[in-house]
Amino acid sequence: MEPGTARIAVDLLGGDDAPAVVVDGALRALRADPDLHLLLVGPPEFADALIGALDPVHRARITVRPVRDAVGMADHPSAARAESTVRAAVAAVRDGTADALLSAGSTGATVTAAALGLGRWPHVRRPALVATLPAVAGPVVLLDVGGSLEPRPATLARHAVLGAAYASVAHAVAAPRVGLLSVGVEAGKGDRVRRAADPVLAAEPLPCGARYVGLVEGYDVSLGARADVVVTDGFTGNVLLKAVEGAYAMAGGPPASGGAPRGAALLGVGGTVVVCHGAAGADDVASGIALAAHLWRRRAIDQVVALLAGHTPAGHDHTIDTEVTTP
Amino acid sequence: MEPGTARIAVDLLGGDDAPAVVVDGALRALRADPDLHLLLVGPPEFADALIGALDPVHRARITVRPVRDAVGMADHPSAARAESTVRAAVAAVRDGTADALLSAGSTGATVTAAALGLGRWPHVRRPALVATLPAVAGPVVLLDVGGSLEPRPATLARHAVLGAAYASVAHAVAAPRVGLLSVGVEAGKGDRVRRAADPVLAAEPLPCGARYVGLVEGYDVSLGARADVVVTDGFTGNVLLKAVEGAYAMAGGPPASGGAPRGAALLGVGGTVVVCHGAAGADDVASGIALAAHLWRRRAIDQVVALLAGHTPAGHDHTIDTEVTTP
Repeated sequence: MEPGTARIAVDLLGGDDAPAVVVDGALRALRADPDLHLLLVGPPEFADALIGALDPVHRARITVRPVRDAVGMADHPSAARAESTVRAAVAAVRDGTADALLSAGSTGATVTAAALGLGRWPHVRRPALVATLPAVAGPVVLLDVGGSLEPRPATLARHAVLGAAYASVAHAVAAPRVGLLSVGVEAGKGDRVRRAADPVLAAEPLPCGARYVGLVEGYDVSLGARADVVVTDGFTGNVLLKAVEGAYAMAGGPPASGGAPRGAALLGVGGTVVVCHGAAGADDVASGIALAAHLWRRRAIDQVVALLAGHTPAGHDHTIDTEVTTP
Repeated sequence: MEPGTARIAVDLLGGDDAPAVVVDGALRALRADPDLHLLLVGPPEFADALIGALDPVHRARITVRPVRDAVGMADHPSAARAESTVRAAVAAVRDGTADALLSAGSTGATVTAAALGLGRWPHVRRPALVATLPAVAGPVVLLDVGGSLEPRPATLARHAVLGAAYASVAHAVAAPRVGLLSVGVEAGKGDRVRRAADPVLAAEPLPCGARYVGLVEGYDVSLGARADVVVTDGFTGNVLLKAVEGAYAMAGGPPASGGAPRGAALLGVGGTVVVCHGAAGADDVASGIALAAHLWRRRAIDQVVALLAGHTPAGHDHTIDTEVTTP
């Protein structure tokens, strides 16, 4: 673990099984990391339940940000109540009360709240979601896993840059190998967007000594033999990630070396934001909080932004821009 | 195992590690199934190696169809030699020497050879590849896994019909639940093709008492809790299947209940055709041969065709038609 305090805002109402699994996950995260501080965002009664379960020695590391809206919205749909808590968690990062935030609520709502509250990076109109799978050969960074469902080739090329910077900064991968996910490794394999994107990625200058290795296959996401960064559209990345998670559940649990990632980082907004999917369990929430703390301690987002400054996309229309809904 | 003799033509030159793994896989298949007969298609010296390794009692169940082209093509690229063997295997099915065929060669070459040699079904211009994943709740039929990379909504609806018929006939699934793979289960989740296809699938009459259950997620492909048949485009299906296979390899092997499928059946051509991917090992080849024998013994392809006759697609242009390359 990297040294240093990390203060993570946790959205108590995010997730299908919130607040129970969020409270449980927060408890596990606190016990595992003595330098972790949590800002619990949501109805105070749920925070009280967590605090009551803690040893007094840990209680000093908990702060509560009551969300009055959520409290007063008992008659509103739970989605609306949860959106008010994720907005409050974003506000805590913006005003410096927290260093990063974790939500297992609607990814679309979190992306929207983070983009509005923390601002977007230059040249990134729609933030990317990046997941890291632990493979035999080392971590494999997969993006996008749900932000841009129908990216253009220029967006995939931008994601190659983002992914290379993230692999280097967040996971200390030296000279990352970057691949484009397709149905075969020979040039020309794939659908129209893959065939159009392959030469665009090959021509894209990559940071951190990264190099483009061409097309890779589904195995490579799980096993990591051919690439450290795998670029794909958010639709494919999302269904693939969930299928791998299901496969590990079928196999009786993740392998010793890791398994499916529990959280995904948001790249493209002005702060450290980690999302878990709605079906997250307590271990997933704890892992997501740990990822947020890790990224903050490495100042990963700031470093990625600095690396991107040297890789401003050329051409007339290389902003990341898709017209689709987020999952 | 279903009763009855099954004569399977095996493409000796198909696959990255052919002929060694094909010969080994054929040997395993023969030993496991006393009513299996194999027609080995390729250079006779490779068939001789297999026959030499067999107990004399098994030798009567082997026939060799030497491919003179392949023998005389030692100086040609291996892909060209392999294509001549898969064409010869297709011819053996067409002329009734074999009941079905297995190839681990190029899927595109096998699909083309099978469509030309065996003919296409009515209303199916591009055959679909269907894989079956063993899930906790029972088998999950996934299609397409590589035939149509960019299907239109009408093609996805046709695949829902094909998948329902196949699940019923090949796997005895009663009243199959059919889902459309997306990034969430709520209506409206997904990219343009998914949002357009969802109402089309909902309106499509399905055979075998099947019903459309709406959108499903990646977990559902591995775990099978929500659907027995999962419909997707061939790009997503292909990368998902390979990622799940990689995950099981990471987890130290497939779970007791199954793991990743080793072969995929071709739906849309006038014969029983099973393909393994190019990286197939001997166990994969043996499983593919067993699948081909199983489908033949159930007369699955004939039964699916008969079921489809009652489900001729309505509308002006519902033939399966994509312009993309096969993987």
